Amino acid sequence: MREVAVIGIGQTRVEEHWDKSLREIAGEAIFLAQQECGLEHADSLFIGNMMSGSANRQQHLGSYIADWIGMRFTEGYHIESACSSGAAAFRSAVMAVASGSVDSAIAVGVEKMTDSPGAEITTQLATAADADWEADMGLSFVAINALIMQRYLHEYHWTKDDFAGFSINAHANGAKNPYARFQEPISKASYQKAPMIADPINLMDASPMGDGAAAAIVVPVEMIHRQKGHKLIKVAASTAATDTIAAHARLRPIWLSAAEKSVKQAYAQAGISPSDIGVFELHDAFTIMAALSLEACGFVEPGQGPKMAIEEQICPKGRVPIATRGGLKARGHPVGATGMYQIVEVVQQLRGEAGETQVERPVYGMAQNIGGSGSNIITHILRAE
Amino acid sequence: MREVAVIGIGQTRVEEHWDKSLREIAGEAIFLAQQECGLEHADSLFIGNMMSGSANRQQHLGSYIADWIGMRFTEGYHIESACSSGAAAFRSAVMAVASGSVDSAIAVGVEKMTDSPGAEITTQLATAADADWEADMGLSFVAINALIMQRYLHEYHWTKDDFAGFSINAHANGAKNPYARFQEPISKASYQKAPMIADPINLMDASPMGDGAAAAIVVPVEMIHRQKGHKLIKVAASTAATDTIAAHARLRPIWLSAAEKSVKQAYAQAGISPSDIGVFELHDAFTIMAALSLEACGFVEPGQGPKMAIEEQICPKGRVPIATRGGLKARGHPVGATGMYQIVEVVQQLRGEAGETQVERPVYGMAQNIGGSGSNIITHILRAE
Repeated sequence: MREVAVIGIGQTRVEEHWDKSLREIAGEAIFLAQQECGLEHADSLFIGNMMSGSANRQQHLGSYIADWIGMRFTEGYHIESACSSGAAAFRSAVMAVASGSVDSAIAVGVEKMTDSPGAEITTQLATAADADWEADMGLSFVAINALIMQRYLHEYHWTKDDFAGFSINAHANGAKNPYARFQEPISKASYQKAPMIADPINLMDASPMGDGAAAAIVVPVEMIHRQKGHKLIKVAASTAATDTIAAHARLRPIWLSAAEKSVKQAYAQAGISPSDIGVFELHDAFTIMAALSLEACGFVEPGQGPKMAIEEQICPKGRVPIATRGGLKARGHPVGATGMYQIVEVVQQLRGEAGETQVERPVYGMAQNIGGSGSNIITHILRAE
Repeated sequence: MREVAVIGIGQTRVEEHWDKSLREIAGEAIFLAQQECGLEHADSLFIGNMMSGSANRQQHLGSYIADWIGMRFTEGYHIESACSSGAAAFRSAVMAVASGSVDSAIAVGVEKMTDSPGAEITTQLATAADADWEADMGLSFVAINALIMQRYLHEYHWTKDDFAGFSINAHANGAKNPYARFQEPISKASYQKAPMIADPINLMDASPMGDGAAAAIVVPVEMIHRQKGHKLIKVAASTAATDTIAAHARLRPIWLSAAEKSVKQAYAQAGISPSDIGVFELHDAFTIMAALSLEACGFVEPGQGPKMAIEEQICPKGRVPIATRGGLKARGHPVGATGMYQIVEVVQQLRGEAGETQVERPVYGMAQNIGGSGSNIITHILRAE
């Protein structure tokens, strides 16, 4: 198995890109990644996307985007695993290069959600849940997360306000990231008075949709002769695990078994423990998911996630910096692109290129992308050389 | 790069499975493959599917199917490249195992098209074409192929009847395959009087839609200690190439450049030439595509594809047996599943388990799956040990 490194990254700002098509935003992120490392042609292209078939009436993104970026004959596929499609594309690229089957691969996550009206997007997002036992019962995705959060509050005796810190940290960091959808900090008061979406999840617990693309270029380490201007970033671990698609089918819906499974394997692959992680881009689609990820990844005892927010351990200067570029909450959550934004942001941190939200000299950075209500969890650990 | 072998295969009959859901037919094919080789748990699951998000309102097939088959924690993704989604899933499984990242993988192709009404399916199939420059102009998929066939007839002076042999061979073979959608032979007369769909493509030039699933299990050769009852089948080559998504953007739409590119690389990987191929499962979605594939793969001169049908060189006892189990035309074309049916059928032939349509002792078998109008072409060569 060949060692793999990330040599180029690119991203567009997450926003409502009314003036650009799906291929334009994907191309923009790819071109930026190419410019960074000077790679003109890649052997393979893996596109993470959840719902272009319904939201944009365009499938077959492999050919569609290879064609657009002028890489004729480059192989290309569309990889989908709901909200973890981005990380799935990155993992596919890593495995393709590691196998020796190809010598360079581009992973890009892209989603253009604003082409569809709001109610229709809610229906499309529900295709990440079980069609028979969740979606058809009228459960939207936020409703499933609300049930999980409600149960968590009940079992561990936290109040809703104890989650405010996750949102405040995300917005504080997003305010310093030019690629973030929301660039204004919020206060505890604004968290408290945010309108309720699905009790106990209010608008400040939930990440916003948006349009965006983020890309990374991977090659075998053995082929890198010189790295222009940036630190070399190696892929130290790439793992994934599924769980039941329906939340109710899990023995304990407030424990992310698939995250635990995937992260344990990742720590073993990288030969490290949680305390070695200098930055952690987790999947804060809802504040409850941030708490559950921190617990499943071994940063805090089960049921104690909110404590880390209250004590500001998750801030850039804290013990486990999360959402350092805004996270899903403030950078935005263009679903199939999110996993690639996480990779790009971890690379920025490890290179020391994270600007005002730079954490102090991280060596290992972790990205964890969650598909469904904890159903498909993909973990990557990157290492700065 | 580790050598990879196929140790188990399974398939459902292609038909209108009104009584079964998407996960049930996928599970059926996987269980059969598992039974064959006794593998209870796989590390990874790659699902080739084109349009479950719209046709079945279900995305996130990795978790959905891993859950259904009882493989909790197995990683799983949905891979899409239009009609070549099946081969893309197989290639993903091969790369994952070759990389050493996982030690066993299941590739399954599944499509359940009959949940959607006919006109809606035509719209969904059009998402394989360019949304802006083809689909939105009113071009259906059969219309794009009709334009290509019309141009081919014009340039090479064939008549429509010269293509009858492709359909007759496919139906003759399908009649002997219990998994085929159509199990009755057709005559030249029935080809000639078939209703026109999009001139010059009539009903007998076009493959039928349907519901179906086919699966294969791959492992590293180094881990096989004994193979129960079946010949060992190795993956000798796995390659892919894209071309422009829109047919009109190609210099010569009647030449499959991506097939040529992908097959040349495949012959090189396997260290063989076209004459070594004992069986060739090609992508006869339309008779014109069968002719173009034979030409691009070096079996006949450009423009001479129909000659091979007229001279019966493509029949099971001919020089280049194609569609030996019915092909897309008679076995059926459940789009995202088709590439996996091709793999399963090549394995059957190489093992000597193809029943009445068994070709004589093939050593190398090739499967070529085409996405779009020649936009994404994936080639696999398998070898019997």
